Amino acid sequence: MSRTPHSPLNLSIRHLRAAYREGGLTPATLVEQIRTRIAEHAADNIWIHVLSDAELAPYLASLSEADPETLPLYGIPFAIKDNIDLAGVPTTAALPELAWTPERSATVVERLISAGALPIGKTNLDQLATGLVGTRSPYGAVPNAFDPDYIAGGSSSGSAAAVAHGLVSFALGTDTAGSGRVPAALNNLVGIKPTRGLVSTRGVLPACRTLDCVSLFTLDLVDAGMLMPIAVGFDPEDPFARPAPSLTAASSADGRAEASFRFGVPADLEWFGDTASASLFEATVRRLSALGGEAVTVDFTPFVEAARLLYEGPWVAERYAAIEDWIRTRPETLHPVTRAIIEPAAEARAVDAFKAQYRLAEIKRRTDAFWPDLDCILTPTIATPYRIAEVAADPIRLNSNLGYYTNFMNLLDLAAVAVPAGMRPDGLPFGVTLFGPAFSDGILARLAERLHLDPSQTAWPTQGATGHPVSPGSIQQPRRPAENLQESEPEVLPLVVCG
Amino acid sequence: MSRTPHSPLNLSIRHLRAAYREGGLTPATLVEQIRTRIAEHAADNIWIHVLSDAELAPYLASLSEADPETLPLYGIPFAIKDNIDLAGVPTTAALPELAWTPERSATVVERLISAGALPIGKTNLDQLATGLVGTRSPYGAVPNAFDPDYIAGGSSSGSAAAVAHGLVSFALGTDTAGSGRVPAALNNLVGIKPTRGLVSTRGVLPACRTLDCVSLFTLDLVDAGMLMPIAVGFDPEDPFARPAPSLTAASSADGRAEASFRFGVPADLEWFGDTASASLFEATVRRLSALGGEAVTVDFTPFVEAARLLYEGPWVAERYAAIEDWIRTRPETLHPVTRAIIEPAAEARAVDAFKAQYRLAEIKRRTDAFWPDLDCILTPTIATPYRIAEVAADPIRLNSNLGYYTNFMNLLDLAAVAVPAGMRPDGLPFGVTLFGPAFSDGILARLAERLHLDPSQTAWPTQGATGHPVSPGSIQQPRRPAENLQESEPEVLPLVVCG
Repeated sequence: MSRTPHSPLNLSIRHLRAAYREGGLTPATLVEQIRTRIAEHAADNIWIHVLSDAELAPYLASLSEADPETLPLYGIPFAIKDNIDLAGVPTTAALPELAWTPERSATVVERLISAGALPIGKTNLDQLATGLVGTRSPYGAVPNAFDPDYIAGGSSSGSAAAVAHGLVSFALGTDTAGSGRVPAALNNLVGIKPTRGLVSTRGVLPACRTLDCVSLFTLDLVDAGMLMPIAVGFDPEDPFARPAPSLTAASSADGRAEASFRFGVPADLEWFGDTASASLFEATVRRLSALGGEAVTVDFTPFVEAARLLYEGPWVAERYAAIEDWIRTRPETLHPVTRAIIEPAAEARAVDAFKAQYRLAEIKRRTDAFWPDLDCILTPTIATPYRIAEVAADPIRLNSNLGYYTNFMNLLDLAAVAVPAGMRPDGLPFGVTLFGPAFSDGILARLAERLHLDPSQTAWPTQGATGHPVSPGSIQQPRRPAENLQESEPEVLPLVVCG
Repeated sequence: MSRTPHSPLNLSIRHLRAAYREGGLTPATLVEQIRTRIAEHAADNIWIHVLSDAELAPYLASLSEADPETLPLYGIPFAIKDNIDLAGVPTTAALPELAWTPERSATVVERLISAGALPIGKTNLDQLATGLVGTRSPYGAVPNAFDPDYIAGGSSSGSAAAVAHGLVSFALGTDTAGSGRVPAALNNLVGIKPTRGLVSTRGVLPACRTLDCVSLFTLDLVDAGMLMPIAVGFDPEDPFARPAPSLTAASSADGRAEASFRFGVPADLEWFGDTASASLFEATVRRLSALGGEAVTVDFTPFVEAARLLYEGPWVAERYAAIEDWIRTRPETLHPVTRAIIEPAAEARAVDAFKAQYRLAEIKRRTDAFWPDLDCILTPTIATPYRIAEVAADPIRLNSNLGYYTNFMNLLDLAAVAVPAGMRPDGLPFGVTLFGPAFSDGILARLAERLHLDPSQTAWPTQGATGHPVSPGSIQQPRRPAENLQESEPEVLPLVVCG
């Protein structure tokens, strides 16, 4: 679908930091290289808005006065899902008629920029962050980075594709039902769905405001470990912010992974007819066991029941509440599928909203009972990938299938990390999710990193769809001039796992 | 209104424990004395059901085999608000057509009985625990223990009256909007509104299930301090139960009160035209300051706004949800005021329920900011008492006035202790509330005890309406035969505050 005459960039954060430190690279040079790649991926519908030279200028000017050594994200390019505010640039949430231009950036964007990160643009999404498919957008469907017949997944479709294609080092998504994990699985990325309230949602258009999380797409868990301490921070302007009383920063760079641990595996797995994912999941269970984990079979039915509550229950009314004035007066501007999901929620009863909260509390009592015995639960992130044409023909049911392993997460106040777990015979990536109770972000990241960099893998993982191998956890010194960023690092051998 | 030819019993828990220990008293003897007093108070509409000899027999039999020394509540008589299950006895919630006879007691009742406590009966309440007046019941209005023209307050009207008249040592209430504190203030009692989820609500008919608490009415805080460690306990059968990670047991018996502390006082107080309460409140502020407290003026408006959300917002839909099948088919069985409050909630929208939750989260963010600087906030418990006839003439507005200082408490996840604070010139008691963040139950109880037993008071506090002086904190040895329980203890001087 897209022509890529230039090789993909290696935008690993530690790779870029080394390049900046050595002086061979400047943020302006990097932006030029990125712009070239962005143009080559124009058909992928990744961006709703790419920052112009004028819009980028203040950020570059600010970096020109900064010390690469002291700013942890100096010149690290990132993408922002277009339901998250970047000052001075329109936020559309893929509903362009609704667009506004915020004066302030979202808190998490402010934090990243203050650390030196460089915003490249605003990315496409399932309209109003409602969907897991990445096709419900007037800006077009986002094709999968490995096979353009397939979906990129959503709702954070553009953010995932931008990272997978090496257009940015990382991207912000949002994750209410799985929007930060499903596209990670489909594009061979790490997707961090933090504990609710750790990353501020101030400046994010709500989907379900009681559940929404800002998520991160990264190339690997070392990068995620650098980003999380910057992204996380109690924000008094976010009414749903929570302090992290005992959070070990979700950083793996300095973490020592547990030598032995226990992980749950669902007693019954749902594959929706898929025949390729199961063996990869079984291999992942074996690998995690070989890394010191004891697999424990768990009853997955309460999670499935909670997952159903999200779209079948009254939480959809939160999506209505988020845009009530708009949908009342301009419903015809919505994507037809999005409208069909959200509009009926106007009629939902408060009585049923409370009853669903009671039912959820009962389910949560059952699932909470798992955690004293387990460090995490391992599931597929999605059961099976879908083609864009399949989703167009059956948009609601296939979307629901994609959320089977993700929809329950925020309702049950869980933290999750989606991590690549091999390639399918059809050339699409397979991914798994490790999840645990609120504030387990740190251990989840450490276990996911060990799984990602497991030296026993038959094929060493690559960074998204770039072909660059994922570097081991320790920060490697680059061996070549920074302008040759597109080259991979063959000398980095997957033998030493330091993270 | 009621004739009381016998002097009131002194049912202080430590007084009874000493009497049992000395061998002069048996539970059966005590029950006989209580029955006499109950008959004398028949006109007070306190009870919906008093246990028969047959119903009491198994409890007495169990005690006859127990050791008074090892059972902490051996033979301590208590009352149960009739929205809380006692096995084998109907629960009506003051809606007799709805009554059922549970096979199991509520968890909190089980815990108290296991500790030796003796259930005497089920008490009257505002129907479905909806109200703060104690008059909305087919079993009649409960008159104030000090002046029968006045309300006892509600919804836990009968429970408060039973303790105030010396018919039981303590009573269980429930407290969603203030039902465990308003009647405490009106009847010269201590009312403990624990942190939500500490005391199980399994076996309690819900009012607002996300907010409901089981509360305690006691004669003083030493008794409360004996009861709380027994009543509190994580109950996996209660989906809203919470473990108490850092709770200092709300016991004052072994607690040392803080030598210096900071307490908030609302910048603006609402008295609804009352002229007698203000000076008592000011005296309480002075007394608490003299006890080592630094008074800090706080903006009370966010609490007032949260209070309004409870009855003006969608939480009333929880009351509808609790009895939906019933109110749909038999609405005519409800008290007309109760019906007028609950029935319209059927139409409330889920969208508005979520919007109110957002608003509440914003308010909570403001009120949470107080706590790093304060140990508690001090308010009147109610601004002004009302006559039964006044409430009959204006049932909704006066009820709302009664909740001015109480309605916000559970919405904002606060703990509260209502404690007597002197007598008004009209002969009615005045009470104040100390409240603080979730899990502050322990310090609230210790500060409230110091205030209750403050030796600088112009008049020493009495136990409810019994005339018996409240004993100092240390457990006193009784000086007289147990059968003379009705006599007060003049030798207990209010000079030594040991609690």
